[in-house]
Amino acid sequence: MSVPPRDPFGWLDDAAEQRRRAGLARTLRPRPADSPLLDLAGNDYLGLSRHPGVTGAAAAAARRWGAGSTGSRLVTGSTALHAELEEALAEFCGFEAALVLSSGYAANLAAVTALTAPGTLLVSDAANHASLIDGCRLSRADTAVVPHADTDAVRKALDAHDRRAVAVSDSVFSVDGDAAPLPALAAACREHGAALLVDDAHGLGVLGDGGRGGPYAAGLAGAYDTVVTVTLSKSLGSQGGAVLGPRRVIEHLLNTARTFIFDTGLAPAATGAALAALRLLRGEPDRPDRVRGVAAELHRRLTGAGLTARAPDAAVVSVRAPSPEAAVRWAADLRTEGIAVGCFRPPSVPDGVSRLRLTARADLDAEQVGRAVEAVIRTAPRGA
Amino acid sequence: MSVPPRDPFGWLDDAAEQRRRAGLARTLRPRPADSPLLDLAGNDYLGLSRHPGVTGAAAAAARRWGAGSTGSRLVTGSTALHAELEEALAEFCGFEAALVLSSGYAANLAAVTALTAPGTLLVSDAANHASLIDGCRLSRADTAVVPHADTDAVRKALDAHDRRAVAVSDSVFSVDGDAAPLPALAAACREHGAALLVDDAHGLGVLGDGGRGGPYAAGLAGAYDTVVTVTLSKSLGSQGGAVLGPRRVIEHLLNTARTFIFDTGLAPAATGAALAALRLLRGEPDRPDRVRGVAAELHRRLTGAGLTARAPDAAVVSVRAPSPEAAVRWAADLRTEGIAVGCFRPPSVPDGVSRLRLTARADLDAEQVGRAVEAVIRTAPRGA
Repeated sequence: MSVPPRDPFGWLDDAAEQRRRAGLARTLRPRPADSPLLDLAGNDYLGLSRHPGVTGAAAAAARRWGAGSTGSRLVTGSTALHAELEEALAEFCGFEAALVLSSGYAANLAAVTALTAPGTLLVSDAANHASLIDGCRLSRADTAVVPHADTDAVRKALDAHDRRAVAVSDSVFSVDGDAAPLPALAAACREHGAALLVDDAHGLGVLGDGGRGGPYAAGLAGAYDTVVTVTLSKSLGSQGGAVLGPRRVIEHLLNTARTFIFDTGLAPAATGAALAALRLLRGEPDRPDRVRGVAAELHRRLTGAGLTARAPDAAVVSVRAPSPEAAVRWAADLRTEGIAVGCFRPPSVPDGVSRLRLTARADLDAEQVGRAVEAVIRTAPRGA
Repeated sequence: MSVPPRDPFGWLDDAAEQRRRAGLARTLRPRPADSPLLDLAGNDYLGLSRHPGVTGAAAAAARRWGAGSTGSRLVTGSTALHAELEEALAEFCGFEAALVLSSGYAANLAAVTALTAPGTLLVSDAANHASLIDGCRLSRADTAVVPHADTDAVRKALDAHDRRAVAVSDSVFSVDGDAAPLPALAAACREHGAALLVDDAHGLGVLGDGGRGGPYAAGLAGAYDTVVTVTLSKSLGSQGGAVLGPRRVIEHLLNTARTFIFDTGLAPAATGAALAALRLLRGEPDRPDRVRGVAAELHRRLTGAGLTARAPDAAVVSVRAPSPEAAVRWAADLRTEGIAVGCFRPPSVPDGVSRLRLTARADLDAEQVGRAVEAVIRTAPRGA
């Protein structure tokens, strides 16, 4: 491609060069359908993404309802399948109503922007997911970022404000797999008449009775002042997201949230798959126990071998690496050994500590867990 | 639900009451799988959403690859199917590379935020889609909103700025179905060394040789300074979105765009469906002619009967209504007659003019077009 002197994208080459020099250039690695890798990197916590009951429901929904929803949810993009999924999600998690969007990202943007206005105070945990942060940026509220998992800091921020306020937190944080102090956070919000918005992406299907999620486990199901977002793409093995909460909140979102109103509705296949996964989860309430058990075992055996890892609150086990370079090499060595793990480095980790991120799955058997543990220990860099 | 005195969502009831009083309350109307309505409201322009080749591909992809992609594209969410779709999209539309995201909304947020920085000038058409507007808000660039389809205003905004600049425009505007003056816009950008970002959501599959889209029709395919976003959920009958452009732009996005990096990859079913739809479109290059022909016929017959409608540049025919109330009643009467149409009212229409929005489809036959035309004319309100 010949490029003339006034090149609007010349700066991209400098940015690319900087990434290369810092060893931070990312590449896509498309996987085959039958990957030989043992997957401890994905978020398919319950192992439902390839469950025949779930893939069969996806296939059936595509054939019955079409490959796409054909429009925004308020025009032609709402099918009876969407309504059924919304009812089932709300009922399962214990909320009055639910609204399904095309992704968890869209659900978070919708909830944060629709529940705030200029002058609203948003109190946001420093370790919140990118989509919550982008929701804060997109809103016209005043955002106070508070130290991670620090309820006193939330209380202080709320103390200093006498208008509407919303505290925003992941239920389980993606990088370290630690849980937010939801009961304390909810109490602080309630004292101040503030709303609480919880992103339960990593909690649904893993925490709470039968996998009903982090807010359910914290006694917040159906609370008048709590709104929850979930993703359909992790424990439910599909794609999409949802907002759960009091009916008036859901009504408000469907009337005002731009990422709901102006986006095409979730495809029928994804909708049907999530519904089937939810029904499977209902029928097999021990799956959440199994995934937590696998996570606990990974942690116990890895720390037993001298590695540094946080005790997991959910499905994510985060193992400390001595440097970004060591983390990258560690993950690459594991790949050579046939095991896929996540690798988090700056700037994705706010504290600057690089980690391997291992995700437990309910369908990992003892042999697989053993193989993973041994390989992680065998390939561990000096200083890990 | 009992609600205590310090109710953080009390304001929602006032907002709901205001909507009700203004007649602007929205409701979801889930449709059955076999709706008896003749659909002139959705965006399934080529009629591919329910094509057995497309739904079959969705079903096969779900069975082969799983119901979800299981992770973000940079971790486990990239399958060989995603890579195949990206190559096919780039090749079809004439660009070096493509990146698939979970929605057109996410694609627009990704492109606008990743290609700008503090101090960049974003020149944005006043009628741009909500997702482009949200991209501008989410970016840290300076946004200049210019009057609709006014290239002189774009040129003036670029004249007044000596740093990096990006002009942003839909190729076909959703409300009125009019096309942007892309060749003039591209020339203005090139004079100023500015980049051009075009959202071709309503152009792909409808405009250009064989449906290669608005930018292709404007001679911008493969341009060094042009980036295009598309949706997979309209002409391609599926779900998702993509960014197309020079390889270095795509590389930059996959390294920096937050709605790409931190979102779960598009589900295999949607990916496979879009790929199948693209192949069908390649094999049946007259589908775009048919949809444009249906739109032209709708316009000719409706204006012939005295209604006011803009000559369509693509698939959307926008018919003027005398008032918001009349528009709502008109759409409701058509529904009673078995015909689904869109209805745009303030505040969704920036000029305050309410409209019926009719979308042509390549698979509407003469009887269906005739039935729709007669019903629209028969139910037209006085003053339309």
